Amino acid sequence: MTAILFLNGPNLNLLGTRQPEVYGRTTLKDIEAMCRDAAAQRNVTVEFAQSNHEGALLDAIHAARGTYDGIILNAGAYTHTSVALMDAISSVAIPTIELHLSNVHAREAFRHQSYIARVALGVICGFGARGYVLALDALLGHLETTG
Amino acid sequence: MTAILFLNGPNLNLLGTRQPEVYGRTTLKDIEAMCRDAAAQRNVTVEFAQSNHEGALLDAIHAARGTYDGIILNAGAYTHTSVALMDAISSVAIPTIELHLSNVHAREAFRHQSYIARVALGVICGFGARGYVLALDALLGHLETTG
Amino acid sequence: MTAILFLNGPNLNLLGTRQPEVYGRTTLKDIEAMCRDAAAQRNVTVEFAQSNHEGALLDAIHAARGTYDGIILNAGAYTHTSVALMDAISSVAIPTIELHLSNVHAREAFRHQSYIARVALGVICGFGARGYVLALDALLGHLETTG
Amino acid sequence: MTAILFLNGPNLNLLGTRQPEVYGRTTLKDIEAMCRDAAAQRNVTVEFAQSNHEGALLDAIHAARGTYDGIILNAGAYTHTSVALMDAISSVAIPTIELHLSNVHAREAFRHQSYIARVALGVICGFGARGYVLALDALLGHLETTG
Amino acid sequence: MTAILFLNGPNLNLLGTRQPEVYGRTTLKDIEAMCRDAAAQRNVTVEFAQSNHEGALLDAIHAARGTYDGIILNAGAYTHTSVALMDAISSVAIPTIELHLSNVHAREAFRHQSYIARVALGVICGFGARGYVLALDALLGHLETTG
Amino acid sequence: MTAILFLNGPNLNLLGTRQPEVYGRTTLKDIEAMCRDAAAQRNVTVEFAQSNHEGALLDAIHAARGTYDGIILNAGAYTHTSVALMDAISSVAIPTIELHLSNVHAREAFRHQSYIARVALGVICGFGARGYVLALDALLGHLETTG
Amino acid sequence: MTAILFLNGPNLNLLGTRQPEVYGRTTLKDIEAMCRDAAAQRNVTVEFAQSNHEGALLDAIHAARGTYDGIILNAGAYTHTSVALMDAISSVAIPTIELHLSNVHAREAFRHQSYIARVALGVICGFGARGYVLALDALLGHLETTG
Amino acid sequence: MTAILFLNGPNLNLLGTRQPEVYGRTTLKDIEAMCRDAAAQRNVTVEFAQSNHEGALLDAIHAARGTYDGIILNAGAYTHTSVALMDAISSVAIPTIELHLSNVHAREAFRHQSYIARVALGVICGFGARGYVLALDALLGHLETTG
Amino acid sequence: MTAILFLNGPNLNLLGTRQPEVYGRTTLKDIEAMCRDAAAQRNVTVEFAQSNHEGALLDAIHAARGTYDGIILNAGAYTHTSVALMDAISSVAIPTIELHLSNVHAREAFRHQSYIARVALGVICGFGARGYVLALDALLGHLETTG
Amino acid sequence: MTAILFLNGPNLNLLGTRQPEVYGRTTLKDIEAMCRDAAAQRNVTVEFAQSNHEGALLDAIHAARGTYDGIILNAGAYTHTSVALMDAISSVAIPTIELHLSNVHAREAFRHQSYIARVALGVICGFGARGYVLALDALLGHLETTG
Amino acid sequence: MTAILFLNGPNLNLLGTRQPEVYGRTTLKDIEAMCRDAAAQRNVTVEFAQSNHEGALLDAIHAARGTYDGIILNAGAYTHTSVALMDAISSVAIPTIELHLSNVHAREAFRHQSYIARVALGVICGFGARGYVLALDALLGHLETTG
Amino acid sequence: MTAILFLNGPNLNLLGTRQPEVYGRTTLKDIEAMCRDAAAQRNVTVEFAQSNHEGALLDAIHAARGTYDGIILNAGAYTHTSVALMDAISSVAIPTIELHLSNVHAREAFRHQSYIARVALGVICGFGARGYVLALDALLGHLETTG
Repeated sequence: MTAILFLNGPNLNLLGTRQPEVYGRTTLKDIEAMCRDAAAQRNVTVEFAQSNHEGALLDAIHAARGTYDGIILNAGAYTHTSVALMDAISSVAIPTIELHLSNVHAREAFRHQSYIARVALGVICGFGARGYVLALDALLGHLETTG
Repeated sequence: MTAILFLNGPNLNLLGTRQPEVYGRTTLKDIEAMCRDAAAQRNVTVEFAQSNHEGALLDAIHAARGTYDGIILNAGAYTHTSVALMDAISSVAIPTIELHLSNVHAREAFRHQSYIARVALGVICGFGARGYVLALDALLGHLETTG
Repeated sequence: MTAILFLNGPNLNLLGTRQPEVYGRTTLKDIEAMCRDAAAQRNVTVEFAQSNHEGALLDAIHAARGTYDGIILNAGAYTHTSVALMDAISSVAIPTIELHLSNVHAREAFRHQSYIARVALGVICGFGARGYVLALDALLGHLETTG
Repeated sequence: MTAILFLNGPNLNLLGTRQPEVYGRTTLKDIEAMCRDAAAQRNVTVEFAQSNHEGALLDAIHAARGTYDGIILNAGAYTHTSVALMDAISSVAIPTIELHLSNVHAREAFRHQSYIARVALGVICGFGARGYVLALDALLGHLETTG
Repeated sequence: MTAILFLNGPNLNLLGTRQPEVYGRTTLKDIEAMCRDAAAQRNVTVEFAQSNHEGALLDAIHAARGTYDGIILNAGAYTHTSVALMDAISSVAIPTIELHLSNVHAREAFRHQSYIARVALGVICGFGARGYVLALDALLGHLETTG
Repeated sequence: MTAILFLNGPNLNLLGTRQPEVYGRTTLKDIEAMCRDAAAQRNVTVEFAQSNHEGALLDAIHAARGTYDGIILNAGAYTHTSVALMDAISSVAIPTIELHLSNVHAREAFRHQSYIARVALGVICGFGARGYVLALDALLGHLETTG
Repeated sequence: MTAILFLNGPNLNLLGTRQPEVYGRTTLKDIEAMCRDAAAQRNVTVEFAQSNHEGALLDAIHAARGTYDGIILNAGAYTHTSVALMDAISSVAIPTIELHLSNVHAREAFRHQSYIARVALGVICGFGARGYVLALDALLGHLETTG
Repeated sequence: MTAILFLNGPNLNLLGTRQPEVYGRTTLKDIEAMCRDAAAQRNVTVEFAQSNHEGALLDAIHAARGTYDGIILNAGAYTHTSVALMDAISSVAIPTIELHLSNVHAREAFRHQSYIARVALGVICGFGARGYVLALDALLGHLETTG
Repeated sequence: MTAILFLNGPNLNLLGTRQPEVYGRTTLKDIEAMCRDAAAQRNVTVEFAQSNHEGALLDAIHAARGTYDGIILNAGAYTHTSVALMDAISSVAIPTIELHLSNVHAREAFRHQSYIARVALGVICGFGARGYVLALDALLGHLETTG
Repeated sequence: MTAILFLNGPNLNLLGTRQPEVYGRTTLKDIEAMCRDAAAQRNVTVEFAQSNHEGALLDAIHAARGTYDGIILNAGAYTHTSVALMDAISSVAIPTIELHLSNVHAREAFRHQSYIARVALGVICGFGARGYVLALDALLGHLETTG
Repeated sequence: MTAILFLNGPNLNLLGTRQPEVYGRTTLKDIEAMCRDAAAQRNVTVEFAQSNHEGALLDAIHAARGTYDGIILNAGAYTHTSVALMDAISSVAIPTIELHLSNVHAREAFRHQSYIARVALGVICGFGARGYVLALDALLGHLETTG
Repeated sequence: MTAILFLNGPNLNLLGTRQPEVYGRTTLKDIEAMCRDAAAQRNVTVEFAQSNHEGALLDAIHAARGTYDGIILNAGAYTHTSVALMDAISSVAIPTIELHLSNVHAREAFRHQSYIARVALGVICGFGARGYVLALDALLGHLETTG
């Protein structure tokens, strides 16, 4: 059975309370429930995690080897500054999708560059919580073709 | 009934014959068929067009007002050089998704910047032909919420 | 009798419906009428054209040789990206004024640079539709002195 | 009765003797006369001043509050280096037009940027002394609409 | 009773032993004592924390919601590299002052830029340990006005 | 008896009338009164001056030698463009604090760089009129230690 | 029989009348005749086309597949701005030589960069009309070796 | 007895499994064994640690004071982004060598800059696992001279 | 009789008291005396002036027309920021030498660029007070040849 | 009889053994023979030289005055770094063609800029050894027209 | 028997007399003796050369083919400016180590970039004369593995 | 007796024949004679040399130690590209003046930067051949003071 890891980075635990005009009022718990529902419908296993610690995100990516077939990574602000996350993804060689709730390309210039995108399968941004399910479909579609 | 315009830019007519290691062997006709099937399943109307002419793409975006509820725009190389397309999208005020077959962020640096993304709803890239259906779902999800 | 070509670039056909907080509610037809009135008062012939196609604008500038004594060019978004328009103006050697409805220097940084201004007689921007008549007066003043 | 301040910056007192191939042979006195004539025809009051001192220009802009309805500012070389003039204009909130005799965009690169244009109503450049009257018309047109 | 969180970032635990020619010989314990004294005099509650972990600083800022009325943040080296801290501050919407012991603008160029300052109330730097009390007064002054 | 010079640069005379959403409604006279009160409480002499002329500010700094023990300099827009003010401060070797009413780091990019900060004791910005008293305390604290 | 397409971009139709001090007095018709003569001598078929429309140049390159063995492309001003032409050339995989009449490296800095050269076989510039025959010889030499 | 700390940063725990064409098949355990052997032969004590957490690396450097005579630091991806590690090294004032398995200067441009190298004794890169023993010899040679 | 104007900019009045390790202990009065002696020996008239006001320097350059045959300009910090001084020199068309006491190219990067040097006859820097006499000889040599 | 100097720069003596996938297996001797044959057919005299020493190349260009009617210069790596070669060519005023075996514009970015091209007649690159004969024809064509 | 070439670039002949605070007092003769000793102990042949001429260094690298198994290159200042040395190393395909006495990354910014490092096996810098023996060990270790 | 070395770099041997509108018609022989005359009048010994070889210039600077009290270096084009010359001058620690015939700051931007000026005593440029005697006086003045 296909297993997918949803991994969320810094400040995403505040979702629903943080700048709702940018990110909406849905909480990360709501999104997790939505992802678990979508996974059940698609008959896949999912895990859902969040950390504000770059090192913990690296540990989680490392631990994903042999357990998960794909990663959906919303690295938040670390997207733009972490070479280490880029290296981790290329090291574990698990197909990874970069995800953002907001359209980062319509925000400050420093949010337009991503180290992660250089090694990701693809990028989805700007669709709020729905983006998690779109990313799940994108990843499953990819695994079907290459698997 | 919701109506969506799929608009494709320069060189995409060559799809399936062009650098297959980057874009795959699917032709634009195949993608159109896939989009029409997906639209039928989702009970929406779609139109599907392609042009190598920046001016023709502008004309098509202008003509979309009053006819289409959303645009899925794969502007190809014009993504990175056309301020005019950016202006057209913000002028007609139709929700627009920026789409790319390949992960442009993993290619040459000049493909990392997009004028269109500044005014788009969101961006999807790197998922090949499947990206068109993902974009359709993303757009319909958006219209449902805001509609 | 002096003849002037008013040439308008991409998206200007949408005038009056497009971002009225930036450009106002006057349509391009209204501006054409205003220009024709002003021309009649000043006893000069004018032509008024618009295209979204960079190539069509180049064709129009080429065709202006031998027919028009001056060009008033609102090249819209092509102002900032088109070396070809710059080359066309210096090729035909017809006095040309660069015109913008909005004050482009108070907008995004990429709108601050102009290829056209390098070869234009002068620049007028920020005065909305009135700018067309100011440009006409500026051009006639120039032709009077040099003619 | 509408009152307009024409304010001229560094080196403009040399007009008519300075680089005539760039600026022509008209003196600042000639321009003042031309402006006074134009003002009389248009039934408006004008004042005309020049200083080489950035601080004096700031003082003059401050003093314009409550006295002038608009400012036509040819700030010369200070255009490109003075954040203080930009701040003064936005502080007094009097509609201001940036004016240059020559087409600054066709000269050295450091003359292409303007702090003043960021807060000005609009910009007119490249039309020599005639630019002063064009700016007067542009300003009166603006005041008529907004007044 | 007003409650303030003093939060200190990487390497500040070494204070008093680290480059004393730049930072002086006062230890972080000394500063904490000074802050507690100042708080007692001003009749406010303070908490004082330090971590070398970016993630721990984020956790602390998140936890401050509902508990502290303001944050005085000496983020040390993370000031210049952490988009995540900037996002955390704007997410929790607690008034925050950026503080540095040394005058960072008189040091290496990469210390001149701050992500945190973009969302902070204000910045105080260059006054050594005394800066903590100045920041406390600045924050209390702000809370008084807006509270 | 310790003597401090408060020196204010361009446009600060307009305080209270200029962009109140950025700078508040307090006038420079109000701030002077507040500073004189604070000085009286702290038993120090203060002088308070303002000029729009960069040269006059230089003259004042030069004249401060032998008369003032410290300078609190709000150089306004000259902060970002004046190498001469930087040189003046390092020439007279009087401890100087850079002060701004607004948080300049949260405004346009050209306001993020300061020539003055390179030679100042420290920087305080973002606290409105209260910043003047904070700067006085910071300066007196410094003089006490080094004096 | 080997077939070669000579493709000419914007403003080249004006050749012979445009800035003769840079480009000479030979018209594009003269060059076509020279190319046809040279082709006849070398026993190859040539086609010769020009357009001011970027889209039309793309269409022509696409249409060249299966018909022409090589392309000699003088893309004029589009050389420096068109990612789409670069993509078209790499898509059709027909050996292409970049050609310019003038030595673009001795002109404005923005003419020093070429998107097309990244995917071209080679570049010839600075030899006026003679460059077309040199390019023909270069292309035939290449085809001989690789064919 | 001389004591040396080998400190390894993010993703180095994956060594031997990660991109073997860049880093080889040796695991970090193998390298630790090699370092312990080399240390025994040279009669020095070594400790060997790894963490994916920037904060944990900072803690380890701080703890090294009074315990280790030198540090051999392979900071991996943090080399290029961590001002905090640079500050930690200059704070503890323990001689530190920057080490990389691969030749970072032959990889992506963002790997060419190092904050750590600014305060390190020296740099060794490109020699794979052997680099650890080279660094040990370099550090011991340095300590001998300066000790 | 040849007449030369020595013109000195901001902070040079402090000479002899300002950063003597950079500029030496000679005062501007000493230099004036040295220049007057040198002028007497060479049988030329000199004037010697200083101002901290950019506008006053501009006024002095303007006034030099018809009175002085050459200018020796030590513009101090204005060298690097004043487009207006550059314009003044090219306007009055009096041969001008740029002079600095210190070697500005061995100091901060922002002192390496000069607007004035673009229009000056030549530059002399790094020779302290002696530079004034060298500049006088250089200017007289030039006038002899061209006069 | 027309005389042409073929001048080759650093590392070109290794031709045929150096990176044959970029430069082919032809040696410089082979190219010299090809050039001598081509020269004989065209009834011109040629000389053929190579040096790894920038100074020797300068000496050779200087010595060419009065002896050669044109220079074909493959300056290799010095193309991108030598202002001295640029100056030498403009000093001797002998028509010079810049030649490269490979298409330098399709290689590393630092190979895209050329000091030599700024003063050369034109540039030919990307055609391997055949480029030498093309350059000979280009140069003879030029000499015919201007001679 | 393995043979290694130690090649030293510009100014290294001055070693021991030049800026001893940066490079120490050891002469190049001392280093040569140290290298010869180390080579004897390791049973390898070494040659040791120095030149101030870039061309002579290129000649020496070329001549190394067939004679030396590896090169240890301290190219001094040419490291940062010579594309030709980079090309020579990649042409001869002899394993080469880049060596510097000082830690170039802790000096001026222009010493941080190296053309040579792009094609070298690895880099060693900052260890003074000892670096030569470290480089010898690094090179022999590499040759052992790959040989 | 004081001894001065005049050292001239690439292309200066062509003086008098090279771009006379920039450099004049005086030959290097003429300048040498002028320098020898001036030296005789000032009772100092001079040597005068020129080379097109960067390495030869380095050798000459090295050889100057113990023989010459100062160097007057016109390094021509190497001024802008040679880190090695900069290092040589700082190594030999002989007072050196950078000299140019033309005002390099009024020419192309790449001639505005100098590696040599960073370590030179001072710079003289723009005075043609007379600059050599000015430099001699500047150097002797310096030696007098410091000697």
